Amino acid sequence: MKSKIRLYVDHPLGDGQAVTLTREQAHYLFGVMRLTVGSQIAMFNGTDGEWLADITQAGKRGGEVFCGQQSAPLRMPPDVWLCFAPIKKARIQYIVEKAVEMGVRRIVPMMTEYTNSERIRPERLQAHAIEAAEQCGATYVPQVAPLVRFDALLATMKDRHLLFCDEAEAGEARGFEKARVSEADPWSILIGPEGGFSPDERAKLQNLPNTQTLSLGPRILRAETAAVAALTLWQMQFGDWT
Amino acid sequence: MKSKIRLYVDHPLGDGQAVTLTREQAHYLFGVMRLTVGSQIAMFNGTDGEWLADITQAGKRGGEVFCGQQSAPLRMPPDVWLCFAPIKKARIQYIVEKAVEMGVRRIVPMMTEYTNSERIRPERLQAHAIEAAEQCGATYVPQVAPLVRFDALLATMKDRHLLFCDEAEAGEARGFEKARVSEADPWSILIGPEGGFSPDERAKLQNLPNTQTLSLGPRILRAETAAVAALTLWQMQFGDWT
Repeated sequence: MKSKIRLYVDHPLGDGQAVTLTREQAHYLFGVMRLTVGSQIAMFNGTDGEWLADITQAGKRGGEVFCGQQSAPLRMPPDVWLCFAPIKKARIQYIVEKAVEMGVRRIVPMMTEYTNSERIRPERLQAHAIEAAEQCGATYVPQVAPLVRFDALLATMKDRHLLFCDEAEAGEARGFEKARVSEADPWSILIGPEGGFSPDERAKLQNLPNTQTLSLGPRILRAETAAVAALTLWQMQFGDWT
Repeated sequence: MKSKIRLYVDHPLGDGQAVTLTREQAHYLFGVMRLTVGSQIAMFNGTDGEWLADITQAGKRGGEVFCGQQSAPLRMPPDVWLCFAPIKKARIQYIVEKAVEMGVRRIVPMMTEYTNSERIRPERLQAHAIEAAEQCGATYVPQVAPLVRFDALLATMKDRHLLFCDEAEAGEARGFEKARVSEADPWSILIGPEGGFSPDERAKLQNLPNTQTLSLGPRILRAETAAVAALTLWQMQFGDWT
Protein backbone atom coordinates (compact mmCIF):
# COMPACT_ATOMS: atom_id res chain seq x y z
CA MET A 1 0.00 0.00 0.00
CA LYS A 2 3.04 2.26 -0.09
CA SER A 3 2.30 5.01 -2.56
CA LYS A 4 4.84 6.60 -4.85
CA ILE A 5 6.79 9.54 -3.46
CA ARG A 6 5.55 12.84 -4.85
CA LEU A 7 8.11 15.62 -5.01
CA TYR A 8 7.49 19.29 -5.69
CA VAL A 9 10.25 20.86 -7.78
CA ASP A 10 10.75 24.47 -8.80
CA HIS A 11 11.74 23.48 -12.32
CA PRO A 12 10.03 23.07 -15.72
CA LEU A 13 8.75 19.52 -16.30
CA GLY A 14 8.18 17.78 -19.62
CA ASP A 15 8.96 14.72 -21.70
CA GLY A 16 12.66 13.89 -21.40
CA GLN A 17 13.36 16.83 -19.10
CA ALA A 18 16.27 16.32 -16.69
CA VAL A 19 15.90 17.91 -13.25
CA THR A 20 18.82 18.58 -10.93
CA LEU A 21 17.96 17.95 -7.30
CA THR A 22 18.78 20.37 -4.48
CA ARG A 23 20.71 19.24 -1.46
CA GLU A 24 17.50 19.03 0.63
CA GLN A 25 15.74 16.99 -2.02
CA ALA A 26 18.68 14.61 -2.32
CA HIS A 27 18.80 14.24 1.47
CA TYR A 28 15.08 13.47 1.57
CA LEU A 29 15.03 11.01 -1.34
CA PHE A 30 18.31 9.18 -0.72
CA GLY A 31 18.99 9.74 2.97
CA VAL A 32 15.50 9.58 4.45
CA MET A 33 13.51 7.57 1.91
CA ARG A 34 16.46 5.38 0.86
CA LEU A 35 15.77 5.61 -2.87
CA THR A 36 18.54 4.68 -5.30
CA VAL A 37 19.37 5.09 -9.01
CA GLY A 38 16.54 3.46 -10.95
CA SER A 39 13.81 4.27 -8.38
CA GLN A 40 10.80 6.07 -9.73
CA ILE A 41 9.09 9.08 -8.18
CA ALA A 42 6.34 11.47 -9.21
CA MET A 43 7.15 15.16 -9.64
CA PHE A 44 5.04 18.27 -10.03
CA ASN A 45 5.80 21.97 -10.11
CA GLY A 46 2.39 23.61 -9.84
CA THR A 47 2.08 24.35 -13.55
CA ASP A 48 3.01 21.32 -15.70
CA GLY A 49 0.94 18.56 -14.07
CA GLU A 50 2.47 15.45 -12.53
CA TRP A 51 5.27 13.46 -14.19
CA LEU A 52 6.77 10.06 -13.48
CA ALA A 53 10.51 10.41 -13.23
CA ASP A 54 13.46 8.02 -12.88
CA ILE A 55 16.37 8.72 -10.62
CA THR A 56 19.53 8.76 -12.75
CA GLN A 57 22.02 10.12 -10.21
CA ALA A 58 21.86 9.81 -6.42
CA GLY A 59 24.41 11.53 -4.22
CA LYS A 60 24.64 12.90 -0.70
CA ARG A 61 24.42 16.49 -1.82
CA GLY A 62 22.52 16.26 -5.07
CA GLY A 63 21.20 14.07 -7.79
CA GLU A 64 19.30 14.01 -11.04
CA VAL A 65 15.94 12.72 -12.15
CA PHE A 66 14.67 12.28 -15.66
CA CYS A 67 11.02 12.89 -16.61
CA GLY A 68 9.22 10.01 -18.31
CA GLN A 69 5.52 10.27 -18.97
CA GLN A 70 2.97 12.68 -17.58
CA SER A 71 0.87 10.90 -14.95
CA ALA A 72 -1.68 13.67 -14.36
CA PRO A 73 -2.54 16.96 -16.02
CA LEU A 74 -2.47 20.22 -14.09
CA ARG A 75 -5.67 20.43 -12.11
CA MET A 76 -6.32 23.98 -10.93
CA PRO A 77 -8.53 24.29 -7.87
CA PRO A 78 -11.54 26.57 -8.31
CA ASP A 79 -11.00 30.33 -7.90
CA VAL A 80 -11.60 30.50 -4.16
CA TRP A 81 -9.30 32.17 -1.64
CA LEU A 82 -9.10 31.27 2.02
CA CYS A 83 -8.60 34.39 4.15
CA PHE A 84 -7.86 33.75 7.83
CA ALA A 85 -6.65 35.64 10.87
CA PRO A 86 -3.36 34.22 12.18
CA ILE A 87 -3.62 32.15 15.34
CA LYS A 88 -1.19 29.91 17.21
CA LYS A 89 1.67 28.61 15.09
CA ALA A 90 0.73 24.93 15.01
CA ARG A 91 -2.84 25.82 14.09
CA ILE A 92 -1.77 28.19 11.30
CA GLN A 93 0.17 25.32 9.80
CA TYR A 94 -2.97 23.21 9.98
CA ILE A 95 -5.03 25.89 8.27
CA VAL A 96 -2.55 26.07 5.41
CA GLU A 97 -2.43 22.29 5.12
CA LYS A 98 -6.24 22.03 5.18
CA ALA A 99 -6.62 24.79 2.58
CA VAL A 100 -4.40 22.85 0.18
CA GLU A 101 -6.19 19.55 0.79
CA MET A 102 -9.60 21.14 0.37
CA GLY A 103 -8.50 22.95 -2.79
CA VAL A 104 -8.08 26.73 -2.88
CA ARG A 105 -6.33 29.07 -5.29
CA ARG A 106 -4.75 31.38 -2.73
CA ILE A 107 -4.22 31.54 1.06
CA VAL A 108 -4.39 35.01 2.59
CA PRO A 109 -3.41 35.73 6.20
CA MET A 110 -5.27 38.86 7.30
CA MET A 111 -4.84 41.20 10.23
CA THR A 112 -8.14 41.87 12.00
CA GLU A 113 -8.96 43.87 15.13
CA TYR A 114 -8.97 40.81 17.37
CA THR A 115 -5.94 39.16 15.77
CA ASN A 116 -3.32 38.90 18.46
CA SER A 117 -0.62 37.12 16.52
CA GLU A 118 1.09 39.48 14.10
CA ARG A 119 4.10 37.43 13.25
CA ILE A 120 3.73 35.04 10.41
CA ARG A 121 6.43 33.67 8.17
CA PRO A 122 4.95 33.35 4.71
CA GLU A 123 7.95 31.38 3.40
CA ARG A 124 7.50 28.78 6.19
CA LEU A 125 3.78 28.61 5.45
CA GLN A 126 4.54 28.25 1.74
CA ALA A 127 6.75 25.26 2.57
CA HIS A 128 3.81 23.76 4.49
CA ALA A 129 1.57 24.31 1.47
CA ILE A 130 4.08 22.46 -0.71
CA GLU A 131 4.29 19.55 1.73
CA ALA A 132 0.50 19.34 1.87
CA ALA A 133 0.30 19.32 -1.94
CA GLU A 134 2.90 16.53 -2.11
CA GLN A 135 0.87 14.55 0.35
CA CYS A 136 -2.68 15.06 -0.94
CA GLY A 137 -2.04 14.48 -4.63
CA ALA A 138 -2.61 18.08 -5.73
CA THR A 139 -0.81 19.28 -8.86
CA TYR A 140 -1.21 22.95 -7.92
CA VAL A 141 0.21 24.74 -4.88
CA PRO A 142 -1.75 27.76 -3.65
CA GLN A 143 0.33 30.84 -2.94
CA VAL A 144 0.48 32.03 0.66
CA ALA A 145 0.12 35.80 0.45
CA PRO A 146 1.84 38.23 2.84
CA LEU A 147 -0.15 39.42 5.87
CA VAL A 148 -2.61 42.14 4.87
CA ARG A 149 -4.87 44.39 6.93
CA PHE A 150 -8.58 43.56 6.86
CA ASP A 151 -9.64 46.87 5.27
CA ALA A 152 -6.93 46.72 2.61
CA LEU A 153 -7.91 43.14 1.82
CA LEU A 154 -11.59 44.01 1.41
CA ALA A 155 -10.61 46.77 -1.03
CA THR A 156 -8.88 44.20 -3.27
CA MET A 157 -11.84 41.82 -3.29
CA LYS A 158 -14.61 43.94 -4.80
CA ASP A 159 -14.92 41.56 -7.74
CA ARG A 160 -15.25 38.43 -5.56
CA HIS A 161 -18.13 36.96 -3.62
CA LEU A 162 -17.25 36.96 0.06
CA LEU A 163 -18.34 34.07 2.24
CA PHE A 164 -18.42 35.37 5.78
CA CYS A 165 -18.48 32.68 8.48
CA ASP A 166 -20.11 34.56 11.31
CA GLU A 167 -19.69 33.18 14.82
CA ALA A 168 -22.46 35.46 16.03
CA GLU A 169 -24.83 33.60 13.73
CA ALA A 170 -24.08 30.26 15.37
CA GLY A 171 -27.22 28.20 15.29
CA GLU A 172 -29.01 30.27 12.65
CA ALA A 173 -29.41 28.18 9.55
CA ARG A 174 -28.16 29.99 6.47
CA GLY A 175 -27.49 28.56 3.08
CA PHE A 176 -26.07 30.10 -0.04
CA GLU A 177 -28.12 32.56 -2.05
CA LYS A 178 -27.45 30.89 -5.33
CA ALA A 179 -29.58 33.26 -7.35
CA ARG A 180 -26.92 35.94 -7.45
CA VAL A 181 -24.07 33.61 -8.34
CA SER A 182 -22.81 32.32 -11.68
CA GLU A 183 -20.80 29.15 -12.01
CA ALA A 184 -17.29 30.49 -12.44
CA ASP A 185 -17.53 33.53 -10.13
CA PRO A 186 -14.50 34.04 -7.92
CA TRP A 187 -14.99 33.72 -4.15
CA SER A 188 -13.17 34.39 -0.92
CA ILE A 189 -13.94 32.64 2.34
CA LEU A 190 -13.25 34.71 5.46
CA ILE A 191 -12.50 33.01 8.78
CA GLY A 192 -12.18 35.29 11.79
CA PRO A 193 -9.77 35.02 14.73
CA GLU A 194 -10.60 33.66 18.18
CA GLY A 195 -13.36 35.95 19.38
CA GLY A 196 -14.58 36.49 15.82
CA PHE A 197 -14.68 39.69 13.81
CA SER A 198 -15.18 42.99 15.67
CA PRO A 199 -18.61 44.68 15.50
CA ASP A 200 -17.10 47.23 13.13
CA GLU A 201 -15.68 44.53 10.85
CA ARG A 202 -18.95 42.60 10.91
CA ALA A 203 -20.87 45.72 9.92
CA LYS A 204 -18.47 46.41 7.06
CA LEU A 205 -18.83 42.87 5.76
CA GLN A 206 -22.59 42.81 6.12
CA ASN A 207 -22.98 46.11 4.27
CA LEU A 208 -21.06 44.93 1.23
CA PRO A 209 -23.24 43.86 -1.70
CA ASN A 210 -20.96 40.90 -2.45
CA THR A 211 -21.10 39.26 1.01
CA GLN A 212 -22.94 36.09 1.91
CA THR A 213 -23.18 34.93 5.51
CA LEU A 214 -22.88 31.30 6.52
CA SER A 215 -23.46 29.76 9.92
CA LEU A 216 -21.52 26.66 10.94
CA GLY A 217 -23.67 25.07 13.61
CA PRO A 218 -24.42 25.70 17.28
CA ARG A 219 -20.93 25.05 18.67
CA ILE A 220 -17.98 27.44 18.33
CA LEU A 221 -15.52 26.04 15.81
CA ARG A 222 -11.82 26.67 15.96
CA ALA A 223 -10.47 28.53 12.95
CA GLU A 224 -9.01 25.47 11.25
CA THR A 225 -12.25 23.53 11.76
CA ALA A 226 -14.32 26.42 10.40
CA ALA A 227 -12.03 26.61 7.36
CA VAL A 228 -12.60 22.95 6.50
CA ALA A 229 -16.35 23.13 7.18
CA ALA A 230 -16.84 26.29 5.07
CA LEU A 231 -14.70 24.91 2.24
CA THR A 232 -16.66 21.63 2.32
CA LEU A 233 -19.97 23.45 1.85
CA TRP A 234 -18.49 25.75 -0.79
CA GLN A 235 -16.80 22.94 -2.75
CA MET A 236 -19.99 20.88 -2.76
CA GLN A 237 -22.04 23.85 -3.94
CA PHE A 238 -19.76 25.65 -6.39
CA GLY A 239 -16.39 23.91 -6.53
CA ASP A 240 -14.73 20.75 -7.78
CA TRP A 241 -16.40 18.27 -5.40
CA THR A 242 -19.59 18.08 -7.42
CA MET B 1 -13.37 39.86 24.36
CA LYS B 2 -12.22 37.45 27.06
CA SER B 3 -14.92 34.88 27.48
CA LYS B 4 -15.87 33.24 30.74
CA ILE B 5 -13.90 30.16 31.73
CA ARG B 6 -15.87 26.96 31.18
CA LEU B 7 -14.97 24.07 33.43
CA TYR B 8 -16.04 20.46 33.08
CA VAL B 9 -16.70 18.80 36.45
CA ASP B 10 -17.55 15.21 37.26
CA HIS B 11 -20.19 16.24 39.79
CA PRO B 12 -23.97 16.85 39.84
CA LEU B 13 -24.89 20.48 39.09
CA GLY B 14 -28.01 22.35 40.17
CA ASP B 15 -29.34 25.41 41.91
CA GLY B 16 -27.34 26.05 45.09
CA GLN B 17 -25.12 23.02 44.54
CA ALA B 18 -21.61 23.30 46.02
CA VAL B 19 -18.80 21.64 44.07
CA THR B 20 -15.44 20.76 45.56
CA LEU B 21 -12.58 21.31 43.14
CA THR B 22 -9.84 18.79 42.50
CA ARG B 23 -6.21 19.71 42.85
CA GLU B 24 -5.81 20.03 39.05
CA GLN B 25 -8.89 22.23 38.77
CA ALA B 26 -7.66 24.47 41.59
CA HIS B 27 -4.25 24.73 39.96
CA TYR B 28 -5.82 25.68 36.64
CA LEU B 29 -8.31 28.23 38.02
CA PHE B 30 -6.17 29.87 40.68
CA GLY B 31 -2.60 29.17 39.56
CA VAL B 32 -2.88 29.47 35.79
CA MET B 33 -5.96 31.65 35.26
CA ARG B 34 -5.43 33.73 38.44
CA LEU B 35 -9.06 33.62 39.53
CA THR B 36 -9.90 34.45 43.14
CA VAL B 37 -12.83 34.14 45.57
CA GLY B 38 -15.76 35.98 44.01
CA SER B 39 -14.78 35.22 40.38
CA GLN B 40 -17.45 33.60 38.28
CA ILE B 41 -17.01 30.64 35.97
CA ALA B 42 -19.32 28.42 33.94
CA MET B 43 -19.50 24.72 34.72
CA PHE B 44 -20.98 21.72 32.94
CA ASN B 45 -20.88 17.99 33.55
CA GLY B 46 -22.28 16.52 30.35
CA THR B 47 -25.76 15.89 31.75
CA ASP B 48 -27.10 18.93 33.64
CA GLY B 49 -26.44 21.74 31.14
CA GLU B 50 -24.23 24.74 31.89
CA TRP B 51 -24.32 26.63 35.20
CA LEU B 52 -22.84 29.93 36.31
CA ALA B 53 -20.92 29.41 39.50
CA ASP B 54 -19.12 31.62 42.03
CA ILE B 55 -15.82 30.71 43.56
CA THR B 56 -16.25 30.58 47.34
CA GLN B 57 -12.92 29.01 48.33
CA ALA B 58 -9.63 29.22 46.45
CA GLY B 59 -6.54 27.30 47.65
CA LYS B 60 -3.42 25.82 46.15
CA ARG B 61 -4.68 22.28 46.38
CA GLY B 62 -8.41 22.70 46.26
CA GLY B 63 -11.34 25.04 46.38
CA GLU B 64 -15.08 25.30 46.18
CA VAL B 65 -17.57 26.78 43.77
CA PHE B 66 -21.25 27.37 44.25
CA CYS B 67 -23.79 26.99 41.43
CA GLY B 68 -25.97 30.00 40.72
CA GLN B 69 -28.27 29.94 37.74
CA GLN B 70 -28.35 27.62 34.76
CA SER B 71 -26.90 29.44 31.74
CA ALA B 72 -27.68 26.77 29.11
CA PRO B 73 -29.70 23.57 29.01
CA LEU B 74 -28.11 20.25 28.09
CA ARG B 75 -27.84 20.15 24.34
CA MET B 76 -27.28 16.61 23.10
CA PRO B 77 -25.59 16.33 19.72
CA PRO B 78 -27.46 14.20 17.20
CA ASP B 79 -27.02 10.43 17.37
CA VAL B 80 -23.99 10.16 15.11
CA TRP B 81 -20.78 8.30 15.92
CA LEU B 82 -17.40 9.09 14.45
CA CYS B 83 -15.42 5.90 13.82
CA PHE B 84 -11.80 6.40 12.80
CA ALA B 85 -8.63 4.36 12.43
CA PRO B 86 -5.88 5.58 14.79
CA ILE B 87 -3.11 7.57 13.16
CA LYS B 88 -0.21 9.63 14.53
CA LYS B 89 -0.72 10.86 18.06
CA ALA B 90 -1.06 14.58 17.37
CA ARG B 91 -3.55 13.89 14.62
CA ILE B 92 -5.65 11.55 16.78
CA GLN B 93 -5.96 14.38 19.28
CA TYR B 94 -7.15 16.62 16.45
CA ILE B 95 -9.73 14.08 15.34
CA VAL B 96 -11.14 13.86 18.86
CA GLU B 97 -11.16 17.65 19.21
CA LYS B 98 -12.84 18.09 15.81
CA ALA B 99 -15.46 15.42 16.58
CA VAL B 100 -16.46 17.31 19.72
CA GLU B 101 -16.59 20.70 17.96
CA MET B 102 -18.60 19.28 15.07
CA GLY B 103 -20.99 17.51 17.44
CA VAL B 104 -21.05 13.73 17.75
CA ARG B 105 -22.50 11.37 20.34
CA ARG B 106 -19.60 8.90 20.48
CA ILE B 107 -16.01 8.61 19.21
CA VAL B 108 -14.91 5.12 18.25
CA PRO B 109 -11.28 4.24 17.44
CA MET B 110 -11.31 1.18 15.19
CA MET B 111 -8.63 -1.25 14.15
CA THR B 112 -8.62 -1.81 10.39
CA GLU B 113 -6.32 -3.86 8.15
CA TYR B 114 -4.18 -0.88 7.21
CA THR B 115 -4.13 0.69 10.68
CA ASN B 116 -0.52 0.74 11.77
CA SER B 117 -0.90 2.44 15.12
CA GLU B 118 -2.37 0.07 17.68
CA ARG B 119 -1.65 2.01 20.80
CA ILE B 120 -4.22 4.49 21.84
CA ARG B 121 -4.91 5.76 25.32
CA PRO B 122 -8.66 6.23 25.61
CA GLU B 123 -8.34 8.11 28.92
CA ARG B 124 -5.96 10.66 27.32
CA LEU B 125 -8.31 11.02 24.37
CA GLN B 126 -11.24 11.45 26.77
CA ALA B 127 -9.34 14.31 28.43
CA HIS B 128 -8.92 15.89 24.99
CA ALA B 129 -12.65 15.52 24.37
CA ILE B 130 -13.34 17.31 27.66
CA GLU B 131 -10.94 20.15 26.82
CA ALA B 132 -12.55 20.54 23.41
CA ALA B 133 -16.01 20.67 24.97
CA GLU B 134 -14.85 23.32 27.46
CA GLN B 135 -13.50 25.36 24.57
CA CYS B 136 -16.30 25.05 22.00
CA GLY B 137 -19.24 25.71 24.28
CA ALA B 138 -20.66 22.17 24.19
CA THR B 139 -22.67 20.96 27.18
CA TYR B 140 -22.20 17.28 26.28
CA VAL B 141 -18.93 15.35 26.08
CA PRO B 142 -18.89 12.40 23.69
CA GLN B 143 -17.45 9.19 25.11
CA VAL B 144 -14.23 7.91 23.55
CA ALA B 145 -14.76 4.16 23.21
CA PRO B 146 -11.99 1.57 23.55
CA LEU B 147 -10.26 0.41 20.37
CA VAL B 148 -12.40 -2.15 18.56
CA ARG B 149 -11.73 -4.35 15.54
CA PHE B 150 -13.46 -3.34 12.31
CA ASP B 151 -15.50 -6.55 12.02
CA ALA B 152 -16.61 -6.46 15.64
CA LEU B 153 -17.60 -2.81 15.25
CA LEU B 154 -19.69 -3.50 12.15
CA ALA B 155 -21.52 -6.23 14.05
CA THR B 156 -22.61 -3.70 16.70
CA MET B 157 -23.87 -1.14 14.15
CA LYS B 158 -26.59 -3.08 12.31
CA ASP B 159 -29.22 -0.61 13.46
CA ARG B 160 -27.29 2.47 12.27
CA HIS B 161 -26.82 4.03 8.86
CA LEU B 162 -23.15 3.87 7.95
CA LEU B 163 -21.58 6.75 6.07
CA PHE B 164 -18.54 5.36 4.33
CA CYS B 165 -16.05 7.97 3.12
CA ASP B 166 -14.37 6.08 0.34
CA GLU B 167 -11.00 7.34 -0.87
CA ALA B 168 -11.30 5.16 -3.94
CA GLU B 169 -14.34 7.20 -4.93
CA ALA B 170 -12.37 10.46 -4.94
CA GLY B 171 -13.79 12.67 -7.63
CA GLU B 172 -17.04 10.76 -8.07
CA ALA B 173 -19.89 12.97 -6.94
CA ARG B 174 -22.15 11.19 -4.46
CA GLY B 175 -24.79 12.69 -2.27
CA PHE B 176 -26.96 11.17 0.39
CA GLU B 177 -29.81 8.87 -0.59
CA LYS B 178 -32.31 10.62 1.58
CA ALA B 179 -35.19 8.43 0.52
CA ARG B 180 -34.21 5.61 2.84
CA VAL B 181 -33.58 7.81 5.86
CA SER B 182 -35.90 9.13 8.56
CA GLU B 183 -35.09 12.22 10.59
CA ALA B 184 -33.93 10.71 13.87
CA ASP B 185 -32.16 7.63 12.49
CA PRO B 186 -28.81 6.89 14.15
CA TRP B 187 -25.69 7.12 12.00
CA SER B 188 -22.03 6.27 12.10
CA ILE B 189 -19.41 7.95 9.96
CA LEU B 190 -16.41 5.77 9.09
CA ILE B 191 -13.05 7.32 8.27
CA GLY B 192 -10.33 4.95 7.11
CA PRO B 193 -6.60 5.02 7.89
CA GLU B 194 -3.87 6.32 5.62
CA GLY B 195 -4.18 4.13 2.55
CA GLY B 196 -7.91 3.75 3.09
CA PHE B 197 -9.91 0.63 3.82
CA SER B 198 -8.65 -2.69 2.42
CA PRO B 199 -10.44 -4.21 -0.59
CA ASP B 200 -11.98 -6.76 1.76
CA GLU B 201 -13.22 -4.07 4.16
CA ARG B 202 -14.58 -1.98 1.29
CA ALA B 203 -16.48 -4.97 -0.05
CA LYS B 204 -17.94 -5.70 3.38
CA LEU B 205 -19.10 -2.10 3.75
CA GLN B 206 -20.50 -1.88 0.25
CA ASN B 207 -22.48 -5.09 0.67
CA LEU B 208 -24.25 -3.93 3.81
CA PRO B 209 -27.79 -2.67 3.25
CA ASN B 210 -27.26 0.21 5.70
CA THR B 211 -24.18 1.75 4.03
CA GLN B 212 -24.08 4.98 2.08
CA THR B 213 -20.94 6.05 0.25
CA LEU B 214 -19.73 9.62 0.15
CA SER B 215 -16.90 11.09 -1.87
CA LEU B 216 -14.96 14.04 -0.52
CA GLY B 217 -13.52 15.67 -3.62
CA PRO B 218 -10.63 14.95 -5.98
CA ARG B 219 -7.75 15.38 -3.52
CA ILE B 220 -6.82 12.87 -0.82
CA LEU B 221 -7.85 14.22 2.57
CA ARG B 222 -6.06 13.41 5.77
CA ALA B 223 -8.20 11.56 8.30
CA GLU B 224 -8.89 14.60 10.47
CA THR B 225 -9.84 16.69 7.42
CA ALA B 226 -12.12 13.94 6.12
CA ALA B 227 -13.77 13.73 9.54
CA VAL B 228 -14.63 17.44 9.54
CA ALA B 229 -15.76 17.41 5.90
CA ALA B 230 -17.99 14.36 6.34
CA LEU B 231 -19.47 15.71 9.56
CA THR B 232 -20.14 19.07 7.89
CA LEU B 233 -22.15 17.44 5.13
CA TRP B 234 -23.94 15.15 7.58
CA GLN B 235 -24.77 17.93 10.07
CA MET B 236 -26.15 20.15 7.31
CA GLN B 237 -28.27 17.31 5.95
CA PHE B 238 -29.49 15.49 9.05
CA GLY B 239 -27.97 17.07 12.13
CA ASP B 240 -28.18 20.16 14.29
CA TRP B 241 -26.72 22.66 11.79
CA THR B 242 -29.96 23.06 9.92
